[in-house]
Amino acid sequence: MNSMRAAYFKGNKRFSLEDVPLPEPSGNEVRVKVAFCGICGTDLHVFHGAMAERIGNHRVIGHESSGVIDAVGGDVNDLHLGDRVVIRPLDACGECPACQRGHEHICHNLKFLGLDSDGAYQEQWVVPAHTIHHIPESVSLSHAALIEPLAVACHDVRRSRLRTGEDVLVIGGGPIGLMVSTVAKAAGGDVTISEVNTTRLETAKNLGFKTLNPIKTDVAAAIHTATGNKGADVIFEVSGTQEGVDTMTAAASTRCRIVMVAIHNKAPQVDMFQFFWREIELLGARVYEPEDYDQAIRLIAAGVVDCEKMITDVRDLAQIDEAFQALGKNPEAVKSLIKCT
Amino acid sequence: MNSMRAAYFKGNKRFSLEDVPLPEPSGNEVRVKVAFCGICGTDLHVFHGAMAERIGNHRVIGHESSGVIDAVGGDVNDLHLGDRVVIRPLDACGECPACQRGHEHICHNLKFLGLDSDGAYQEQWVVPAHTIHHIPESVSLSHAALIEPLAVACHDVRRSRLRTGEDVLVIGGGPIGLMVSTVAKAAGGDVTISEVNTTRLETAKNLGFKTLNPIKTDVAAAIHTATGNKGADVIFEVSGTQEGVDTMTAAASTRCRIVMVAIHNKAPQVDMFQFFWREIELLGARVYEPEDYDQAIRLIAAGVVDCEKMITDVRDLAQIDEAFQALGKNPEAVKSLIKCT
Repeated sequence: MNSMRAAYFKGNKRFSLEDVPLPEPSGNEVRVKVAFCGICGTDLHVFHGAMAERIGNHRVIGHESSGVIDAVGGDVNDLHLGDRVVIRPLDACGECPACQRGHEHICHNLKFLGLDSDGAYQEQWVVPAHTIHHIPESVSLSHAALIEPLAVACHDVRRSRLRTGEDVLVIGGGPIGLMVSTVAKAAGGDVTISEVNTTRLETAKNLGFKTLNPIKTDVAAAIHTATGNKGADVIFEVSGTQEGVDTMTAAASTRCRIVMVAIHNKAPQVDMFQFFWREIELLGARVYEPEDYDQAIRLIAAGVVDCEKMITDVRDLAQIDEAFQALGKNPEAVKSLIKCT
Repeated sequence: MNSMRAAYFKGNKRFSLEDVPLPEPSGNEVRVKVAFCGICGTDLHVFHGAMAERIGNHRVIGHESSGVIDAVGGDVNDLHLGDRVVIRPLDACGECPACQRGHEHICHNLKFLGLDSDGAYQEQWVVPAHTIHHIPESVSLSHAALIEPLAVACHDVRRSRLRTGEDVLVIGGGPIGLMVSTVAKAAGGDVTISEVNTTRLETAKNLGFKTLNPIKTDVAAAIHTATGNKGADVIFEVSGTQEGVDTMTAAASTRCRIVMVAIHNKAPQVDMFQFFWREIELLGARVYEPEDYDQAIRLIAAGVVDCEKMITDVRDLAQIDEAFQALGKNPEAVKSLIKCT
């Protein structure tokens, strides 16, 4: 009872499952018995060697988690043993210029739990109490593991100021694209997904979305035709490609709000003339704020998200290496979960 | 009395001053006796051969004008002979998707008076009545010729949602950069101008702005230092250069609003990672809406704009060729006016 298992990422595409002493929460912390933790695209990048310097060779990663509180620090009053929870894995410094103006989620010194400190691929996880959100009884712990990526999508859609009835183009139909599409549809958007992978297109269709394949169709022209020459009111660039960036300016309506969801590590060329010509807005978006978590929990509880279609597979913590290897070989997967206890 | 002089742009860096029959306004038009008309950067581009297809070889250009109404069409009720006015040189179709949603100033079929139809470098100019704004008695007709470019700046600053006390960086200290800086300062911004031309830097200093020379200083680093590592809250990219685009993302605060004022005909590379990292916003801006004209008129009337420092020279309509040639050779000029009558 005084030890637990934790999956340490050791670099070189390998985890090591180790028995470690059961950690105790200090004053403002709680310990969560982790139920499920999804594999994020970022985790997969880490697995394949990205961010090696940031991660090191002995780090528990994982941040898309759900669980039950099983120990509470002495200074925590509003959380209790047995509470069913999800963890918002951000720890801000509280002192930098971003924090001072209320942008804690983009704190200059932001610590991302599961990257900058140990994360959720372990049986018990000690986290700051301020990261905890309760989930309703009606939400299963496996579905709750989708709340973190769904909160990203809620943040993206909130940044877009989407209104009911607006035409939405989502460029890229992978896991994040589908999440964004789901939230945009729930917000009243008329959503079209652009995606090149035919299996992903099929998944998108099965989830009820209109789809376009840019290999076969001029997406911008199709959007203008479908909207009476108006263009898309809101566009989410999720592809991270130069082609996606070209499409986002070409498909835009006047005063279109484009949300940059993808992380472009290489600076793409952007058609600035279209920004001038149609008064386009481009909005950067990063992770989430507490209200995005609240919204994601509401949407899951309301049954808006088809969680069963989103969860591709579930593997035990002991199979974490296989889970990562399988996901790396399967671009059609939506969300793989690790069952931690 | 039944003829007037008009300066036709004939292509090949040449105007031809011609006597033409005095035009009469039809039902919803008025005729303005043009007092002054400034030379816009766009006019100078036309003079040097840009937009040849759009302009043709027999076009009266010019759109930064002031004047007095000297004839009124039969269906116009609220405008009168002798009214002192400026002209907002936009004519929207009223039917396209942009017009339908109230974006007439970026109408899909926008007619820009002075480019797509004849403009103000003539003694009398017939324009649609809806383009007219009255100016107060206290504003001279030469100062009123600055209202059009100032309205562009008012639109840019309005797009930025600038609040009192915010740190503003204006990249580019030419005529538009100075106008934007003036309006941003009037809105309560703490303005720094980045500019490479030392004479322009001197002008900016004389107008009371802080200045940085990117040839000598790392502008982004200087802005971060000056703002306690926060960065600029609002940035106007007026330079139209790759270096300016690099600086705009590097100098930004979290949730910085960047207004793209320059027209980038070539797609620059944009550091999209910074959009993600700091949740930057990029806002396209084009011309103006009626309220921007109203604001520009208010600012000129209130004496906020040092019009005398802004007006570099004034030449008669008969000297229009010389005026354009001189302006083309003088990058330090702010605003050259043509006195049309």
